Amino acid sequence: MSLAALQSRLDHRFGDEALLEQALTHRSHGARHNERLEFLGDSVLNFVVASMLFDRYGKIDEGDLSRLRANLVKQASLADIAQKLELSHDLRLGEGELKSGGFRRPSILADTLEAIFGAVFLDGGFDAARRVIARLYQPILATVDPKTLGKDAKTLLQEFLQGRKLALPVYTVIATHGAAHSQQFEVECAIPAWEIKVVGAGASRRAAEQAAAKSALEAAQAASPAKNPKRAPRARKTAQLSLPVAVAQEVK
Amino acid sequence: MSLAALQSRLDHRFGDEALLEQALTHRSHGARHNERLEFLGDSVLNFVVASMLFDRYGKIDEGDLSRLRANLVKQASLADIAQKLELSHDLRLGEGELKSGGFRRPSILADTLEAIFGAVFLDGGFDAARRVIARLYQPILATVDPKTLGKDAKTLLQEFLQGRKLALPVYTVIATHGAAHSQQFEVECAIPAWEIKVVGAGASRRAAEQAAAKSALEAAQAASPAKNPKRAPRARKTAQLSLPVAVAQEVK
Repeated sequence: MSLAALQSRLDHRFGDEALLEQALTHRSHGARHNERLEFLGDSVLNFVVASMLFDRYGKIDEGDLSRLRANLVKQASLADIAQKLELSHDLRLGEGELKSGGFRRPSILADTLEAIFGAVFLDGGFDAARRVIARLYQPILATVDPKTLGKDAKTLLQEFLQGRKLALPVYTVIATHGAAHSQQFEVECAIPAWEIKVVGAGASRRAAEQAAAKSALEAAQAASPAKNPKRAPRARKTAQLSLPVAVAQEVK
Repeated sequence: MSLAALQSRLDHRFGDEALLEQALTHRSHGARHNERLEFLGDSVLNFVVASMLFDRYGKIDEGDLSRLRANLVKQASLADIAQKLELSHDLRLGEGELKSGGFRRPSILADTLEAIFGAVFLDGGFDAARRVIARLYQPILATVDPKTLGKDAKTLLQEFLQGRKLALPVYTVIATHGAAHSQQFEVECAIPAWEIKVVGAGASRRAAEQAAAKSALEAAQAASPAKNPKRAPRARKTAQLSLPVAVAQEVK
């Protein structure tokens, strides 16, 4: 097993290659697996990203720094980086995991990447770990909008409207379907100033509100430039209204 | 304001003393407060403690490492360290916080200590932060039992009994008092092998079980050495039984 390609993609040449091998070893493969390295790597990653955000955004408060970091180190973000590094080629999985496609699973890719960060720290010290992590995150940070990354749709919509001094959106539950343990909610989100009304659905009221807010934000952004007041999303979404309302009356 | 004493207790002489001043400044005191430093300090602390635990306990799995770390960096542990450093002397609080005794509040002490770790990192780099944190934590780590730290009473009691090949304890709800929104539970914990029966109370069944397990563990530990089979806790606790049982019948 040659790990030369991976080491060059990481831009770290291991003094002790056994550490990298262990970082690539899932617990399904053998006793010398990567879970302790993952514990260590998770914490060095959190610290390095915290430090990068602290330096880059001198005016952002700690709540927003936490939101940004949570988004940058979440499983999906790590799995993306792992794919760019082509980690799946070098993963060591047990037979069951191999057959069930474990090399594509985001949790395994993310955990392995954290373990690699831990291994780099043990192999080369903190400066080596910081250099490897910073090199992977710099291109991501360059494209991030710190005002919106990791915010939910309701928050983004509220901020969008407040920025234009418009009234807050109005959320109304217009339908619920199904039995108590598997309910489906439909929520309308209205922006009176622009006559936007869209509907979102979800397994909870909260989820349905978020879905509605997402559509409303898209509609509002499309409607916002005065020259281009198209409201395509509205017409499409409003058409969904008729059936759910009827169903809701049956349920109640 | 001379911060020389604090710097000598920390064993770090700041190149830029303004960083230490900012770390000591609560948001109630002024705009240049410590919350961004706390964000940074929290993450360097988590990493350094993770690394110390990783090195010290080579055989402990990542779940136990996480449990140990959570306990070592929790608010109460940080507030203890802050008190040993006499941080309250140098805190900069707003008037309201001063009057309400903010300099004694564990949350303020803990947050300030984290901010100081962040300030040391900015001032002296990672090695300085690691040295300061390690020096404060080494005496704590020396007294920690990694098998028990941060485990709840039910887990500890179960492990204590399993280690002696004894049957698991039996938990029984013997009384509930009060209305639905403010219920009080009483749970008996029985260890048949040693004829131990104790009662614990709490605002939830879970809390009452934990309280009972704690008393049962004390009783079991007292009963355990054959030479010293005193069961003082048992007699006292069992005496509390009569009233609650009667009350429970009224409630049902």
